Amino acid sequence: MRPSRPLQELRFAIEEFHCAYADVLDRGDVERWPEFFTEDAVYRIIARDNLEANMPLCLMLCDGMGMLRDRAYAIAHTEMFAPRYVQHHINMTRVIGVDGRFVTAEANYLVFETLIDEPTKLLQAGKYRDQFLEMDGELLLRDRLCVFDTVVVPNCVVYPV
Amino acid sequence: MRPSRPLQELRFAIEEFHCAYADVLDRGDVERWPEFFTEDAVYRIIARDNLEANMPLCLMLCDGMGMLRDRAYAIAHTEMFAPRYVQHHINMTRVIGVDGRFVTAEANYLVFETLIDEPTKLLQAGKYRDQFLEMDGELLLRDRLCVFDTVVVPNCVVYPV
Amino acid sequence: MRPSRPLQELRFAIEEFHCAYADVLDRGDVERWPEFFTEDAVYRIIARDNLEANMPLCLMLCDGMGMLRDRAYAIAHTEMFAPRYVQHHINMTRVIGVDGRFVTAEANYLVFETLIDEPTKLLQAGKYRDQFLEMDGELLLRDRLCVFDTVVVPNCVVYPV
Repeated sequence: MRPSRPLQELRFAIEEFHCAYADVLDRGDVERWPEFFTEDAVYRIIARDNLEANMPLCLMLCDGMGMLRDRAYAIAHTEMFAPRYVQHHINMTRVIGVDGRFVTAEANYLVFETLIDEPTKLLQAGKYRDQFLEMDGELLLRDRLCVFDTVVVPNCVVYPV
Repeated sequence: MRPSRPLQELRFAIEEFHCAYADVLDRGDVERWPEFFTEDAVYRIIARDNLEANMPLCLMLCDGMGMLRDRAYAIAHTEMFAPRYVQHHINMTRVIGVDGRFVTAEANYLVFETLIDEPTKLLQAGKYRDQFLEMDGELLLRDRLCVFDTVVVPNCVVYPV
Repeated sequence: MRPSRPLQELRFAIEEFHCAYADVLDRGDVERWPEFFTEDAVYRIIARDNLEANMPLCLMLCDGMGMLRDRAYAIAHTEMFAPRYVQHHINMTRVIGVDGRFVTAEANYLVFETLIDEPTKLLQAGKYRDQFLEMDGELLLRDRLCVFDTVVVPNCVVYPV
C-alpha cells in the first residue's frame, strides 16, 4: 500500500503544475497559457459522449505551439465576449504511468465562471487526461485532453479549461 | 507542526484510494464498486440532520458484501433511470487516527450529475467518515458513512456516492 | 522539478490546517474560529473586482483578536439568520514563499451553503491569500485575505469563509 517516495514527489510536482496553470488562466493572463506546453503539444476539449462514441469532434483543438499561441492571442485581443472571472479547481491528481521522461496522469477539474452581476456558475466539470514531458527538471504538457461531462454549457467556452 | 513521514504516506495512499473509487463509479462501472470494501463492510448514506438528531434512517444502507453486490447488480441491470454522467470530487482527506491495521479518516465530497441536455448539477455535498482496514498492503473500506448536507436532491440518488 | 522534501511537508501541514479550519466552521463551532489566528491577525473578505480596482471596501474585516472574537460571538449568539449548513472545499494549496517563521501561501476555496428545504448552492468561489506564522511548531494565520469572484451572493454571508 505505502507508495514509493518518487511517486509522491511526482504527484506533488504535477499538483504544483496544475496550480500554476490555473493561476495563469484565472488571472486572465491567457497569453502565458502556451508556456505550459511543449512545441509539439496537442490540446483538445472534447465532450465525454463524443469521446465514448468515437466521434472526434472537439470543442477546441490546438495542434502544436503555433495554434496554441494563435488561440491565446485571439482570446486576449478580441473582446467579443462579456467580462468574466474564471476559477479552476483541479484536484484528484493521479499518476497513471511513467515511461522515461513521459508521465501519464489524470485529474478532475471544475471550472466556475462569474459574469458581472450574476452568481457564480459551474461552467464545466471534466477530467484531464494528460501526458507530461519532463524537460530540464520541469514539467510541460505534451498532450492535454479535457473530457467534459457538461454537454450543455451555460453560455459559451471562451477561455481554455 | 511538521507531520511525521508515515502520516503523509498514509494520507497519500487514502487519496489514491479515493481516486480509484471515484474513477470506477464515474466510469459507470458500478459492479466493481464492492471491490473497495471488506467482506463485513457497512456502507451508509445519511442526511446530516438525521445523523445529528440521532435518527438512524439512511438514504442507502448496505450491511456486508452480499448487500453491496446486490445493490451494485441492481443498479447495473435495471434501467429505470435516465442516463447520466456522474463525477465525484473527493478532497480534504484527513487521517483522524490509526489503531493497528484500522485507519479512521474523513474527506469532503461533491457529486456532480449531468443528465443529457441539462447543465451539470451538484447532486450532493457531503463528508465521508471512513474506517479503512489495511490488508495485504492494500486499503479497503470497513465502514463508509456518507453524511450529506443536501437534504433536497435535484432528482434522485441512483448511484452510490 | 522534484520539489524539496521540506516544501512537501510544509504544504502538507497547511492542508491539515485548512481541514481543521473548515471542520470547525462547517460544524457550526464558530466560537473556535479565532483560535486559528495570531493575536495581531487581520482577516478580510473582499470582492475580486474591488481588490483589482484598489477599492479597499471589504465584506468583512477583523483587525486583531478582539474583533475576531467579537465577530464569532455575534454569529454564535445572534440568530437573525435562517439555519443552514456550510461546507468549505479548500484545495490547490500552494506555498508561495517562506521568510523565517512566516509562510505565504494561497488556496482556492468553494463555500457551499444548504438551507433547510433547498438544494445546496455555491455561496462563494474565491482564493485565500494567506500569511501563516509558525509558532511553537504550529501554524497560525497572521493574515487571511479571502478574495471572492462571486459578486452576487445567493443570499447573505453570515459565517466567515
